[in-house]
Amino acid sequence: MLSTMQDGHLTVGTLLRHGSEVHASSEIITWTGSGARRETFAKTGEQAAKLANALRALGITGDQRVGTFMWNNAEHMAAYCAIPAMGAVLHTLNIRLFPEQLVFVANHAEDQVILVDGTLVPLLAKQLPHMRTVRHVIVANGDAATLQAPDSIEVHSYDGLLAEQPGTFDWPAVDERSAAAMCYTSGTTGDPKGVAYSHRSIWLHSMQVCMTDGMRVAESDKALAIVPMFHAMSWGLPYAALMIGASLVLPDRFLQPEPIARILAAEKPTFAAGVPTIWQALSQWLDANPQDISHLREVVVGGSAAPPSLIHAFQERYGVPILQVWGMTETSPLGSIARPPKSETGEQERQTRYTQGRFPAGVTARLIGDSGEELPWDDESVGELQVRGPWVAASYYGVSDVDLDKFHDGWLCTGDVGKISPDGFLTLTDRSKDVIKSGGEWISSVELENAVMGHPAVAEAAVIGVPDEKWDERPLVAVVVREGQRVTAAELRDYIADKVAKWQLPEYWTFVDEVPKTSVGKFDKKRLRAMNSQGNLDITHL
Amino acid sequence: MLSTMQDGHLTVGTLLRHGSEVHASSEIITWTGSGARRETFAKTGEQAAKLANALRALGITGDQRVGTFMWNNAEHMAAYCAIPAMGAVLHTLNIRLFPEQLVFVANHAEDQVILVDGTLVPLLAKQLPHMRTVRHVIVANGDAATLQAPDSIEVHSYDGLLAEQPGTFDWPAVDERSAAAMCYTSGTTGDPKGVAYSHRSIWLHSMQVCMTDGMRVAESDKALAIVPMFHAMSWGLPYAALMIGASLVLPDRFLQPEPIARILAAEKPTFAAGVPTIWQALSQWLDANPQDISHLREVVVGGSAAPPSLIHAFQERYGVPILQVWGMTETSPLGSIARPPKSETGEQERQTRYTQGRFPAGVTARLIGDSGEELPWDDESVGELQVRGPWVAASYYGVSDVDLDKFHDGWLCTGDVGKISPDGFLTLTDRSKDVIKSGGEWISSVELENAVMGHPAVAEAAVIGVPDEKWDERPLVAVVVREGQRVTAAELRDYIADKVAKWQLPEYWTFVDEVPKTSVGKFDKKRLRAMNSQGNLDITHL
Repeated sequence: MLSTMQDGHLTVGTLLRHGSEVHASSEIITWTGSGARRETFAKTGEQAAKLANALRALGITGDQRVGTFMWNNAEHMAAYCAIPAMGAVLHTLNIRLFPEQLVFVANHAEDQVILVDGTLVPLLAKQLPHMRTVRHVIVANGDAATLQAPDSIEVHSYDGLLAEQPGTFDWPAVDERSAAAMCYTSGTTGDPKGVAYSHRSIWLHSMQVCMTDGMRVAESDKALAIVPMFHAMSWGLPYAALMIGASLVLPDRFLQPEPIARILAAEKPTFAAGVPTIWQALSQWLDANPQDISHLREVVVGGSAAPPSLIHAFQERYGVPILQVWGMTETSPLGSIARPPKSETGEQERQTRYTQGRFPAGVTARLIGDSGEELPWDDESVGELQVRGPWVAASYYGVSDVDLDKFHDGWLCTGDVGKISPDGFLTLTDRSKDVIKSGGEWISSVELENAVMGHPAVAEAAVIGVPDEKWDERPLVAVVVREGQRVTAAELRDYIADKVAKWQLPEYWTFVDEVPKTSVGKFDKKRLRAMNSQGNLDITHL
Repeated sequence: MLSTMQDGHLTVGTLLRHGSEVHASSEIITWTGSGARRETFAKTGEQAAKLANALRALGITGDQRVGTFMWNNAEHMAAYCAIPAMGAVLHTLNIRLFPEQLVFVANHAEDQVILVDGTLVPLLAKQLPHMRTVRHVIVANGDAATLQAPDSIEVHSYDGLLAEQPGTFDWPAVDERSAAAMCYTSGTTGDPKGVAYSHRSIWLHSMQVCMTDGMRVAESDKALAIVPMFHAMSWGLPYAALMIGASLVLPDRFLQPEPIARILAAEKPTFAAGVPTIWQALSQWLDANPQDISHLREVVVGGSAAPPSLIHAFQERYGVPILQVWGMTETSPLGSIARPPKSETGEQERQTRYTQGRFPAGVTARLIGDSGEELPWDDESVGELQVRGPWVAASYYGVSDVDLDKFHDGWLCTGDVGKISPDGFLTLTDRSKDVIKSGGEWISSVELENAVMGHPAVAEAAVIGVPDEKWDERPLVAVVVREGQRVTAAELRDYIADKVAKWQLPEYWTFVDEVPKTSVGKFDKKRLRAMNSQGNLDITHL
């Protein structure tokens, strides 16, 4: 029996109309290095209309792809609105991809136009000659004349192009199941893989972000989106802000601890989101340069597991709760949320904040063991996490054969390894490829890292498996010591001796200036392993 | 371009699985008159499975309709879960319908089975012989033997039927666009009209209920659902509770102020929802029997406009904010929410709480004037409210010609009349059929009622238009005086003299013991008009 309810409506176009009309006075606040430039959502709506008119004039029709190569700023926000709302597909290019990957994704998505920030022109210019489908480049926040492009590509100034355009656009009706935006993930081996979010999945995910037990984003919020708009849609914050009328603070290219601290002082956001390394660095900065950040009602941390020491530091030193979330590009990304339940207080509540959290309605999960069997939720059985749901990917864009390692019988195989408690809290212990297999047992690299990072002299610690004749693999710990502190490998091993099982205690240690990071700020263990196999690490064998 | 995201999933079945597994220990608490009986969501899941098995055994297949004729209790909750999750359609029968309407809706929906509460058996029994499609009646919370049914109908005991059934059910995959539940609205003239909610519309609406700027329902809540489960799905609370793991307090048949006060004292819910008359009555009770109700973080009031005096009383006397919402059966029902924006404080914030609120993303609104033109949002232009969106009805069930008075070009014509402010806040001034047309001008019956109800001696006031030779119509005020108080018509007219325009001041007044109410607790102006035209009101003409 058919229902009598209306269908459709879950489109970026309805979000844009809603945000710019009902929440007309909410603001997009972009940091400039010395201060902030502000525009209202009404103005964002107008700018989006101008951009859509401009793109139409450049020949963008149907579901063609328009790339962005930009920081988090108002112009990127206009692109987030205009491109999907006009029926085209927004492709956020990750500015930290390796050159050949950048060329690959632009060609694979067949980007027709690329919007680029002035400061990123040099990075893009070198690869433009290899981008086969790009016909126009639009330079925002900078001088278009500085871009030397091949003859086949026209270069435009963002401001110049928009100045001539009307501030309204007849946003078309769009099928909510069609693609709205694309993001390539470079986490797996081989070429980057594209996830094409639908209008519907973006809508549902935005509602989740605004739910009280989700990220709790509300009209009363001023949300600092540190997580890049070229990484998993900035965890859904731009569209959630439009949906609910939260003001958005965008740091542009000012992502170091000092400017972030200045943004916090100047704008006093109520909410912020970013990867652990951002908060680790800020925490170090704040220790040396104290500042009240209690205007933050909550900080969301995801992308990698937040070390307990970080969660503890934010709560105790700054009075700011850290909310840990888990997700990936393929899950839009919000997949689980570590919000302690009503029954918990004190130490129990604290322990729950250390987990990756519980799955919201809409994300169904299971744990799969080595031989494909489903494992119980007993907080002990460790297996691969698989998920499914309306904001989870079913396949990759333009990959003819479905990758059976990633998609299996309607489930996304996350590549994350962990356990689930009887009341549904997920604790990830590793990426499946980072697990250390020692004498037939598994050692979690993440648990070792967290134990070592609990030491006050340690800024960062990354653990990889290294070949071992007797045990197949053993852990190697790469340690970054806090400025002005000293610590030895033996001291660190003693420090963690009562925190991990004896047979897991690492005998290989190395001290490095910094842990290599991926384009999205996670520990890059592939590079760490390469450094080790090339003999570039100075190793202490205890 | 197709997205790569998963489709489907937005079904009551996924909500049930999520609630009973992830939030297994949250509770359904049913008031018994002297105390509460409690079951966990895990148990609700088991009961739902038993009920689904029992219904299958009785021959329920496909999308057949199963009716409920029940109070708010755990057995009704099991029906809410089991019937849609098994692919059938839940039809909540309004126990307060007139007998011929009750027969009409059961026959129109072709109900195969009806679940009935023991205390409601006498009410149902009289009409059963006229219900042509009903084959089975299941009696919960009472003795099945008391029901004298026609030979064609088998009578079962709920407990007996479920006792034999397994506590698991292989919930089928269901198309999220198919009907999950039906609710007939008797608000319009003619036969009641059925709204068939889809699984998808229920899902989206539940997310809205759980959004921070929606009803803010969270896992930490214990929500008292006074609004009946046979009225617009209890405003979405049962499914929202499953979605987020909020415990639910259900008052069963104990809806008078005294038992509600006892439920509040015993269970200390954090949240409650009901029509204004419930809260008016409770407020009078609490004035005579003081009790701390500040455990309520918020009370949601809808169904009719909440008088400012009520909102004021709850805030000042009990420290409980009232959140006014607007909606109707056709809007699932959440259509607008009076949550003051961040920019407002003090008197401005208070005034915003008196409005019907702002439209959430997902509800698009417009105002239409007398000659079909769209009116501006200037807080002055008054017209009919029309809405559309993914949880708004597109038509009525089984009505072959779409009712053009209700559905027009993709919009639902609400029959509500009001104005909208530039920042999107709706103020309803009347139902279109209740507006008093006096000398070519419109007088809002609701504004007059609110003005009169501001007087401390007035418990309730309802205003209808009565024929007048000179002005076509003039307002008649029906007043219920608070117990132990006295007031005259002249005193009341003087009291409101500075609150409404002089030409609107009513000259017709009547004092009544109570204002007649509709089945859902709203002022029944149709009956008041009938009482007047039959000369049954004692009218003072000033």
